[in-house]
Amino acid sequence: MTLVNGIPQEHIELSDRGFQYGDGLFETIAVKQGHPTFLSRHLNRLSEGCNRLLIPAPCQELLQTEVKELVTNSKNAILKIIITRGSGGRGYRQPDNINSTRVLSLHPFPEYPTVFKEQGISIRFCNTRLGLNPTLARIKHLNRLEQIIARAEWSDDQSQEGLMLDINDNVIEGIMTNLFYVKNDIIYTSPLVYTGVAGIMRGIIIDLISTHSFKLILQDFKKADLLSADEAFLCNSVIGIWPIKSIGSTHFNIGLRTRQLQHLLAQYEHEEIISHL
Amino acid sequence: MTLVNGIPQEHIELSDRGFQYGDGLFETIAVKQGHPTFLSRHLNRLSEGCNRLLIPAPCQELLQTEVKELVTNSKNAILKIIITRGSGGRGYRQPDNINSTRVLSLHPFPEYPTVFKEQGISIRFCNTRLGLNPTLARIKHLNRLEQIIARAEWSDDQSQEGLMLDINDNVIEGIMTNLFYVKNDIIYTSPLVYTGVAGIMRGIIIDLISTHSFKLILQDFKKADLLSADEAFLCNSVIGIWPIKSIGSTHFNIGLRTRQLQHLLAQYEHEEIISHL
Repeated sequence: MTLVNGIPQEHIELSDRGFQYGDGLFETIAVKQGHPTFLSRHLNRLSEGCNRLLIPAPCQELLQTEVKELVTNSKNAILKIIITRGSGGRGYRQPDNINSTRVLSLHPFPEYPTVFKEQGISIRFCNTRLGLNPTLARIKHLNRLEQIIARAEWSDDQSQEGLMLDINDNVIEGIMTNLFYVKNDIIYTSPLVYTGVAGIMRGIIIDLISTHSFKLILQDFKKADLLSADEAFLCNSVIGIWPIKSIGSTHFNIGLRTRQLQHLLAQYEHEEIISHL
Repeated sequence: MTLVNGIPQEHIELSDRGFQYGDGLFETIAVKQGHPTFLSRHLNRLSEGCNRLLIPAPCQELLQTEVKELVTNSKNAILKIIITRGSGGRGYRQPDNINSTRVLSLHPFPEYPTVFKEQGISIRFCNTRLGLNPTLARIKHLNRLEQIIARAEWSDDQSQEGLMLDINDNVIEGIMTNLFYVKNDIIYTSPLVYTGVAGIMRGIIIDLISTHSFKLILQDFKKADLLSADEAFLCNSVIGIWPIKSIGSTHFNIGLRTRQLQHLLAQYEHEEIISHL
């Protein structure tokens, strides 16, 4: 089921700038037990992204109403929200009056094996690099060719994710995940100044780290830093936290901090879900 | 009139990856006297772009047939061709069997004042920078947020175009045009290694420069180099060549090389059109 500006339909005008130029943003939300998890965080990020891209942010109450309409009767699912600058304008020039398009769609929850969460995943480095562009960094916008080209580098099931470096050899993130690693009990992740997506789950983990007074440093790092880590993990809104058990031929143990954060996240998510029941 | 995979329609499936991720390419072609100008150059660039993005290139004969169908009865118009990776796949991962989508649409020819071509235009520098990404450089892909954000910097008619620098302060191109300048009888333009779009008109002008043994250097340059130029001009497939008469408060004379290239281009285009009548 899909709603376009509140109306059930499966297509969009060709003139929509989302199709013409990738002129918009999106959110991917895990629906669990009929509850869209961390919805207010997603809707806040969507508003901030709209502000940065100069797209009028849709009313959050309206979005919440439509989300509820859509997730009624669903148990576990993926809810995707796309906001575009709508139709109109001449070429790259935006229209004087922007009527943004909102698309809410529900998809099956991907059936990842539970061993990914429990025993960790094997990942690889991608050859495709992330470009540098502070204007678009951190935003979950619709210009996603870099991720698509990177994900096309392999098609077997040996690697569950690919890590992307930027053109200055900094390790930034996974194709669909953010990356954390731990060294000497300090947790590190990329500051995402020039590239990358500031994921909702990344934000939650940073909050959990802060709440529990673990040490966190946001700084650029290289392959060698990551490969000498004591532990490392990936995260996003759908998978939660997946420990990394190997990157190429380098093996990792699943460490204390990863297990603690998985536990804290499960607790945090559980509390959010039951508070809405 | 618009054709989607050969069928007249005005909308596209929401699941199309062009809408979901900007996963595709486009061409903008000037139709003059019913003739799609420089069509084979556009179709070749489209094929090359498809190859670089790992999208199966649509058959050129098929595209030519559909273009003919569309431009019949039109005199002057803009023909836009969009190719996307089609629907399917899981997230960024492309489907195992890609059925690309092709969209051909006809639009009114923009009525630019003839003084732009004859007496030059006033332009400005944009604050929005082009990101660096050799993977996507030169391709006319559908990830165009940088251009949209840049074009939103002004809405009056004082500037006919905005110039974009990359994050290393190199002047690259206009938002919708490529840029050339002349200094001491040498013509310069950006090599577009890390960013920018390699325009069809840019390619034609480089060919004309070469054919007539003018001196050309493809190299990075800064604002100061451009502002001390003897002459400068912008180009794209729709406008042809527009001389620059001012960038901000810096004025330029319309020079010999700009006028020669305008003349040579008109001749080249005329010959192409009559050869197809």
